[in-house]
Amino acid sequence: MPVAEVLSVGTELLLGQVLDTNCQFLAVELAKLGIDCFFRTTVGDNKQRIKEALQTAFNRADVVITTGGLGPTADDLTTECLAEFFQVEQVFDDQVWAHIQELFKHRNFPLPESNRKQALRPLGAQILPNPAGTAPGIIWHVSPELLKKASVANPEKDRCVLTFPGVPRELKAMWADTAFAYLLKRYTSGTMWSIELKHYGIGESALAEQYAHLLEGSNPTVAPYAGTGECRLRVTAKADTIDGAKIIAQPIVDEILAGSGQRCYGFDNDTLESVVGELLVKGGYRLSVAESCTGGLLSQRLTDIAGSSRYITLNVVSYAYEAKVGLLGVSPVTLEKYGAVSPECAEEMARGMLKLGYADIALSVTGVAGPAGGTEAKPVGLVYMALVTKDQCIPRTLQLGSKAGRSEIRFRTTNEALNMVRLFLLNNLK
Amino acid sequence: MPVAEVLSVGTELLLGQVLDTNCQFLAVELAKLGIDCFFRTTVGDNKQRIKEALQTAFNRADVVITTGGLGPTADDLTTECLAEFFQVEQVFDDQVWAHIQELFKHRNFPLPESNRKQALRPLGAQILPNPAGTAPGIIWHVSPELLKKASVANPEKDRCVLTFPGVPRELKAMWADTAFAYLLKRYTSGTMWSIELKHYGIGESALAEQYAHLLEGSNPTVAPYAGTGECRLRVTAKADTIDGAKIIAQPIVDEILAGSGQRCYGFDNDTLESVVGELLVKGGYRLSVAESCTGGLLSQRLTDIAGSSRYITLNVVSYAYEAKVGLLGVSPVTLEKYGAVSPECAEEMARGMLKLGYADIALSVTGVAGPAGGTEAKPVGLVYMALVTKDQCIPRTLQLGSKAGRSEIRFRTTNEALNMVRLFLLNNLK
Repeated sequence: MPVAEVLSVGTELLLGQVLDTNCQFLAVELAKLGIDCFFRTTVGDNKQRIKEALQTAFNRADVVITTGGLGPTADDLTTECLAEFFQVEQVFDDQVWAHIQELFKHRNFPLPESNRKQALRPLGAQILPNPAGTAPGIIWHVSPELLKKASVANPEKDRCVLTFPGVPRELKAMWADTAFAYLLKRYTSGTMWSIELKHYGIGESALAEQYAHLLEGSNPTVAPYAGTGECRLRVTAKADTIDGAKIIAQPIVDEILAGSGQRCYGFDNDTLESVVGELLVKGGYRLSVAESCTGGLLSQRLTDIAGSSRYITLNVVSYAYEAKVGLLGVSPVTLEKYGAVSPECAEEMARGMLKLGYADIALSVTGVAGPAGGTEAKPVGLVYMALVTKDQCIPRTLQLGSKAGRSEIRFRTTNEALNMVRLFLLNNLK
Repeated sequence: MPVAEVLSVGTELLLGQVLDTNCQFLAVELAKLGIDCFFRTTVGDNKQRIKEALQTAFNRADVVITTGGLGPTADDLTTECLAEFFQVEQVFDDQVWAHIQELFKHRNFPLPESNRKQALRPLGAQILPNPAGTAPGIIWHVSPELLKKASVANPEKDRCVLTFPGVPRELKAMWADTAFAYLLKRYTSGTMWSIELKHYGIGESALAEQYAHLLEGSNPTVAPYAGTGECRLRVTAKADTIDGAKIIAQPIVDEILAGSGQRCYGFDNDTLESVVGELLVKGGYRLSVAESCTGGLLSQRLTDIAGSSRYITLNVVSYAYEAKVGLLGVSPVTLEKYGAVSPECAEEMARGMLKLGYADIALSVTGVAGPAGGTEAKPVGLVYMALVTKDQCIPRTLQLGSKAGRSEIRFRTTNEALNMVRLFLLNNLK
């Protein structure tokens, strides 16, 4: 298998003005292809240093991937540096120019002369189309003669370079449309299919332990990834066709689904909130939440899903005592006796929310998000929740610990709340 | 001034399992110190390749900063590689070991033998203390003899290396406690002070144009940074003392404050929501929001501020028609005639919210967040807001465009809403 090297070009990256997320995206994608990446380099908008970085990269990698430096301004130097490094001239690509003109016409912007630069490519390089912006990249299979002229080590070895703009949206579109398939075809035989199984309520190491025997496999491969408050297992299979790859992956996917049960909450782009949404739609239920310590974050996550108006009608952030009493009908006696952070208050909040009449399921959250407000009896990180329907009340207590900050406590609480609704729906949907 | 190079060590970075945010933090900090950084490299947990990367880094930089690879396991190789690269032995540091033992005792964890590794340092290196974890780093001023032995280019030139663990929290603590001051003292004369002036409602290029004459300056320096929905101007001054630096910076800060007026909303760690919170506390006002398209995000941001219970008592996410009518008293005739996304509905939502009696200021938001639900008359990205008090009603219309995605439309809407409250308070506080 070939070795890749990613070269990020841009002074703004070295100054910390922009966080380089492209390299993480490319790392994951290259891993999917089974292409190793041993080094990643970031260099500023400086010709000499870009060429120095190219030299190093071509010396040690088979596939060089650059990001950034494809814009129309004077400090966009990637294409020019590649042409100079391999000592070939740049040619003007009429088709690219037509595409750029079209884009500007569509946007009703005047087209600056400087954009002509974006239609240049080194002689011998192919265009890597950009469906999402003006700057196309190149795919260049560099000949041994050129490698030799540029003093690259082992010039007889096959080398190729792909260039991308720095804008993540454009890079991703170009990758999905062209580059991934190109690398797959060039460096692997057959094709590849992968699926992520998303887990909640189990840690990465426990997951890796449970499926240790699968992590050793080579086709399909299984790899664990830890995310914020979730874990993923990626199953990747290779075969001559996509259908063939799916057939190879299926038994492993089935094994994981059986082994994980309800701890596996979905696939690929599923989120806890999207899965909850699907289950609510399926059951024909409406959900209302009454939040205190999470302050609207739970409502925000639920309504982040397009189409959530099918099951969300009213949510309430009852932050103060008087709102809990006045709007939700929590008894002042309960607040007096047990406090706002109590199982009793959580239950009354949820019952009050249900009584307002905008939902079939009501969920409440009340706790101490900190950093202040904790006591020995009710420390920061203590949260009570209650899920109420017309004939059930399910309480739940979380102890998230005071080490986690306010934001983390709030976020993890909403994870737990969403998961609570998910499990309730899974176990109560007919 | 010296040139720095950052070397991130960790296979998990090359696989994309972890996003490298340390390098952005270090980039900003080095820029504050006036230390240039021309290259940044990421390398996996592999001895040969780490040493190769060290060779390259020492050849071209005066200050080499490594992150990662300081843990107790077999694939934590940074210290070992540095010792091997410079051909010195590793010595066991009793003080570090005592610190590690202390930490484990405090955490009530058994101390694995493998952690002894973390008490090793190359002979001649100083310990860079880690106040936030077990793994200390080193500060190593490398002698010309060692540089020569390691075949580093220009060995007579002063070189130093600082190592940090990969955990951002620990790295930042070590930087703040020791490394920043060390580099400041070693490479600059005197000290440095900087402040960020945060702006809303003006773009980066407009800001750069307005203050073009300041961007040329050398002491203080002024640099613009673009963030999500905001722009920052950083003013940095050097002097013998902090107070001296502040005195140098002050006239420029004053000039920007005068020139930007209300578009400058705060300093350093201020956010729109924290500034709104401070103004509400100052005025003794309570705020309630009634959200539709933002679905709780506005409430979440307001309550993200610790202590926000002083001014937030109740917020409502009235997502459905029936919630707008039933809870907020929006007239069904208004909804019928103008629709839920209309200035009329926004005003009635805010008035209804105020009437519930939990606030002195009520703000409503209703719009089309998309991706579906847009029409020619009411396209995706159209949002109406209203701010209501007992004797005022201020309406506002946003056209955020359909190109922005659902999340961006929701986020930018909350920016505008927070800014609307901020400007109202600024202009109405006595």
